[in-house]
Amino acid sequence: MPKLVVDISMSLDGFVAGPNQTLEEPLGRGGNQLHEWAFAAQAWREAHGLDGGETNVDNEVVEEGVLRVGATVMGRRMFSGGEGPWESDPNADAWWGDDPPFHHPVFVLTHHERGPLHKEGGTTFTFVTDGIESALEQARAAAGDDDVAVAGVADVVQQYLRAGLLDEIQLHVAPVLLGDGVRLFHAPVPDPPHALERIRVIESPTGVTHVKYRVGS
Amino acid sequence: MPKLVVDISMSLDGFVAGPNQTLEEPLGRGGNQLHEWAFAAQAWREAHGLDGGETNVDNEVVEEGVLRVGATVMGRRMFSGGEGPWESDPNADAWWGDDPPFHHPVFVLTHHERGPLHKEGGTTFTFVTDGIESALEQARAAAGDDDVAVAGVADVVQQYLRAGLLDEIQLHVAPVLLGDGVRLFHAPVPDPPHALERIRVIESPTGVTHVKYRVGS
Repeated sequence: MPKLVVDISMSLDGFVAGPNQTLEEPLGRGGNQLHEWAFAAQAWREAHGLDGGETNVDNEVVEEGVLRVGATVMGRRMFSGGEGPWESDPNADAWWGDDPPFHHPVFVLTHHERGPLHKEGGTTFTFVTDGIESALEQARAAAGDDDVAVAGVADVVQQYLRAGLLDEIQLHVAPVLLGDGVRLFHAPVPDPPHALERIRVIESPTGVTHVKYRVGS
Repeated sequence: MPKLVVDISMSLDGFVAGPNQTLEEPLGRGGNQLHEWAFAAQAWREAHGLDGGETNVDNEVVEEGVLRVGATVMGRRMFSGGEGPWESDPNADAWWGDDPPFHHPVFVLTHHERGPLHKEGGTTFTFVTDGIESALEQARAAAGDDDVAVAGVADVVQQYLRAGLLDEIQLHVAPVLLGDGVRLFHAPVPDPPHALERIRVIESPTGVTHVKYRVGS
């Protein structure tokens, strides 16, 4: 059965973005350092329309995600960094230009209705205003036999975790302390202490540790 | 040159103790789950005067610590869980009875003067009231060619980290979400983003991931 998965880069001190996120620096101060392993990978570059890149174990991790994920659910903040009505969102067309790196249907959680946004390369953004379960249902239908990914900002990951809907969490732990920013885990978890099953560890020569857990219900 | 090292068990969501720490439950709710891998290890049991135990890779990690560490620095909270004058600390004799598991000199950071406390098995507690650098200096002298460990509660680890005195951090990441409690990393770090060098990953069949980092200065 297809899974609901999270793949997220995190600093050793638990941050998925640095402090002071802005339109110019959406990952906050130091936040890019969490993703350097991915930015360098051939599969990441290809998804972003770029040539070259590393073909190391980090690349295999990116490639696996590209192959297994057929639809993505994300929050409004990941989509545009904005909030409120779309007319007043300066980044309402999102970060990724005409050919976003997803190449599959993306469902954006928002409180503000909006028709679908069709982009090149197979990415369509559908805006979902009736909650995380509806977004997941639509994403599952779109993904077919493939997995659905929850992308981006910690809030949305937390919501799916608390609702008991998440099947797997893969953390890409970067060897850096950010000291401040957006924590992945900042809210109560269901039934603490909540045991997980670690199902894989990949030690990359770049210093990143890819650790995958199955989330019990 | 001997190192100043931290060896600490942490939940996947970054906690080194659960919420609601009490004299009866010093590790807080769910906190014991962080240490189960160690409690089961032969070397941990031997240090605590117990027979038997696992001789797996977790045990090798414990054993390595026992062999390389010649003195320990800890905070008052780790020592007794108390604060204020010693006369009013119900746990002033600490948690470990007549034969504590350290078997080497231990330096306890406190604001309240007190003469040394000699225990069986080679453990002597020396109370240091003039700060972390003095405690480290005394511990280094006592340890000789062996490493010095910073033990226990996050505050003391943070202080040595911020002062740039820490050489290595080994995290034993337990496959559990505590949701609340005492965070290891809860305060600003020096010069963020502060890059570390990951020097070892050990994947235990018990689900714990032992990850060791060199801390740059």
